Amino acid sequence: MIVLGIDPGIAIVGYGIIEYKSNSFKVLDYGTIQTKAKIPYPERLEHLYKELDKLISSYDIDSISIEELFFNKNVKTAIEVAHARGVLVLCGQLNKKKIYEYTPLQVKQGVSGYGKADKKQVQEMVRLLLGLKSVPKPDDAADALAVAICHCHSAKHRELFRA
Amino acid sequence: MIVLGIDPGIAIVGYGIIEYKSNSFKVLDYGTIQTKAKIPYPERLEHLYKELDKLISSYDIDSISIEELFFNKNVKTAIEVAHARGVLVLCGQLNKKKIYEYTPLQVKQGVSGYGKADKKQVQEMVRLLLGLKSVPKPDDAADALAVAICHCHSAKHRELFRA
Repeated sequence: MIVLGIDPGIAIVGYGIIEYKSNSFKVLDYGTIQTKAKIPYPERLEHLYKELDKLISSYDIDSISIEELFFNKNVKTAIEVAHARGVLVLCGQLNKKKIYEYTPLQVKQGVSGYGKADKKQVQEMVRLLLGLKSVPKPDDAADALAVAICHCHSAKHRELFRA
Repeated sequence: MIVLGIDPGIAIVGYGIIEYKSNSFKVLDYGTIQTKAKIPYPERLEHLYKELDKLISSYDIDSISIEELFFNKNVKTAIEVAHARGVLVLCGQLNKKKIYEYTPLQVKQGVSGYGKADKKQVQEMVRLLLGLKSVPKPDDAADALAVAICHCHSAKHRELFRA
């Protein structure tokens, strides 16, 4: 199963593509899609859409896992990110991919088995599970890989319970 | 000049297409694009995108005027609508249309010349300016026509000041 994890944003979208087979993970790709604040935001949305579209076309992705928005701090920022997130979800949908969504809490639990794990602990678990020498950089890419791992674990649990 | 006005939403998007020539308006089309709450929201976003895309292709639209989000009430709803609004803006952008945005206050002022006008007064002005026998229904369509009118007035003012 190949999963694309997405950490949504307007300035930086993190992505991580992993393969999950026989209980082990393999990293295929990770990184960020970035847009500059000085560009009109319809163009920023276009850039995010087109870059994600290219990425989806480059791998034989089975499903997309995208983090839900967490918005207790800045409503204005959340609204901006929600515009971008809508575009990212649409891109997956138009590519006929199944889209799964996880809250930040679910991602923490899904990766580290512990909802109160801090960012560093989650990133260290991402590194360990993916067999990497160091924590993927930047944080947005590491977060996207965590969202992808979370979906693999969740899909496996669903499978087990169904069996 | 042909302008497409959009009143963004996730369950109901209002649209209105008007032609503005020699200081007078002509209605070309108006109505709503609707999505059902029971459908998974990536599919709702896809439906909005595809229907708006068809609409843009059906008319020789010069520019798109879309209302900004007003969100002092329900942040959860605003976040949902922002996802949809991102998709609508993307659709205009991918169709290479110029996109203009107006706040609800700007729309009221742009249509009725008075920022404190109530909804009914704005709708009545829409009816008068467009030479319609009755106020367009539903409200979302009337609001979208108001957003389109607001842009025509604003564009005319910009023209005058430039001259």
